[in-house]
Amino acid sequence: MALKVTALAGGVGGAKLAHGLARILPQESLTVIVNTGDDFTHLGLSISPDVDTVVYTLAELSDQERGWGRGNESFHALDVVRQLGGESWFRLGDLDLGLHLQRTTLLRRGIPLSEVTQAFCEAWNVPAAILPMTDDLVRTIVETPEGDLPFQEYFVARGCEPRVRGFRFEGLANAAAAPGVYASLEEADIVIICPSNPWVSIDPILGIKGVRERLVEKKVIAVSPIIAGKAVKGPAAAMYANLGIEPSALAVAAHYQGILEAIVIDRTDAALREEIERLGIQVFLSETIMKSIEDRIRLAEEVIDFAGMESGL
Amino acid sequence: MALKVTALAGGVGGAKLAHGLARILPQESLTVIVNTGDDFTHLGLSISPDVDTVVYTLAELSDQERGWGRGNESFHALDVVRQLGGESWFRLGDLDLGLHLQRTTLLRRGIPLSEVTQAFCEAWNVPAAILPMTDDLVRTIVETPEGDLPFQEYFVARGCEPRVRGFRFEGLANAAAAPGVYASLEEADIVIICPSNPWVSIDPILGIKGVRERLVEKKVIAVSPIIAGKAVKGPAAAMYANLGIEPSALAVAAHYQGILEAIVIDRTDAALREEIERLGIQVFLSETIMKSIEDRIRLAEEVIDFAGMESGL
Repeated sequence: MALKVTALAGGVGGAKLAHGLARILPQESLTVIVNTGDDFTHLGLSISPDVDTVVYTLAELSDQERGWGRGNESFHALDVVRQLGGESWFRLGDLDLGLHLQRTTLLRRGIPLSEVTQAFCEAWNVPAAILPMTDDLVRTIVETPEGDLPFQEYFVARGCEPRVRGFRFEGLANAAAAPGVYASLEEADIVIICPSNPWVSIDPILGIKGVRERLVEKKVIAVSPIIAGKAVKGPAAAMYANLGIEPSALAVAAHYQGILEAIVIDRTDAALREEIERLGIQVFLSETIMKSIEDRIRLAEEVIDFAGMESGL
Repeated sequence: MALKVTALAGGVGGAKLAHGLARILPQESLTVIVNTGDDFTHLGLSISPDVDTVVYTLAELSDQERGWGRGNESFHALDVVRQLGGESWFRLGDLDLGLHLQRTTLLRRGIPLSEVTQAFCEAWNVPAAILPMTDDLVRTIVETPEGDLPFQEYFVARGCEPRVRGFRFEGLANAAAAPGVYASLEEADIVIICPSNPWVSIDPILGIKGVRERLVEKKVIAVSPIIAGKAVKGPAAAMYANLGIEPSALAVAAHYQGILEAIVIDRTDAALREEIERLGIQVFLSETIMKSIEDRIRLAEEVIDFAGMESGL
């Protein structure tokens, strides 16, 4: 029987490793469970940023430079929205709009997000199963001194500028795992937590009823999204500081303590090895920055290898 | 005081004459009241085909070859909708989508169509007031042996192929004239019925409560959209045949009898003059096919002149 791998992923970083995994595993081997906490409605469209990033990346339709959205993208529709005085802070490209229009249409007909995602994956020959964590509505809310902000508004419109007091995931407590989520976790030989933000992208998945319990039973290996803590730049750095999190691979490991068997950290973080091991978590060192498709494939192979498995391809 | 002209228009043909009028009249002189019976919701978007055609044409953003939609248009979003198995029969271009997204967003916030249209006209410096006939929902339904079809589905998706038994305008009886419609009719020195389809594009406007009564008081001049009856080709021809209408300038004049003072018909239809005059309607002959912008301007000038007025520019 083929190896069964279930990956948990948020957006860009997670999608890169999932892409590497998709390239080295047979189609029936890989399931990617994706965060939907960032989903929102914008210009009347139902947008699932993380699901879309994973779908585009695995379908090899994503933009290689920007890291989000589709390659060869144009922004004609958005230009008109802007001319007409509308909101243009969320960079919706024309190709991307086509997906949002069709998804919104199907969701309004009552088709759940998981089925819509499956249909899109089939249309684009995505070589893995991509499951939104839930078909229910979960909303990541950022608590700031200016009041609550929906995640995308905090992250994209405001560039993580307002001070973060905390996050909450509205609807998460009552959200049911999407069909296939439990089965994929139960059947998995390895669960890989991709290098996505543990606090905002992976936590919502772990918060879905029944997910954490199933992980405890499994061989779970994470790849740290934080490399050489002080090098964390951009919006995420401010967020970590606001939350009192020391951004480091150690903080990532500690955050996942209790479910994690092993973590892959960057060689530049080798000094953290002992401290992480003291948490009862095995440490593997590698180059975890994925600049090229070759990096994605190599890291994916290493993760499977570290977990003591063979990809089977 | 400047001449006040109110034009009634449907889509492409009506928009052409309205464009000619906009070019020869001062901005404050021209109001165009536009049919909204063809409005529909598609892919979750609120689409107003006739209003958009008039706005694009008067903003000089419309496509010159196709006759509908915007010039320099691309169809990237629609290509994706098609790839994903969605409905792509209504040719929504990317630029056009931008307008529909913004309109749909504003309508959902409770802003009426007339205000949305005014805002768009301001953004694009449209040199006239464009008023949808109503802010209420009116739906042109085509009755066919296959059952009822929304107008755009009959016209675009089915290419007028199903046999037409009749039309009805759902919601028309209770639709209120949009703000400005009554005032523009009352203040008008001339009302021009543009060369749009009398049965499906102009009748809904005439059916708005209070419109017909105001027209009876006015100098009303129409331009026949039907030229040399036997030359009417394409979808409209089948529709007229189905409805038992002899497609001719005479049928147009007869249809408007009671509100019309004069009609402009094509020189090729000169033979119909006497019969039309017997209806008590004055006849003017001209070249009514508008191929170029010069044709639009010339015909607009003639109509103003026939009505015994001066454009004032």
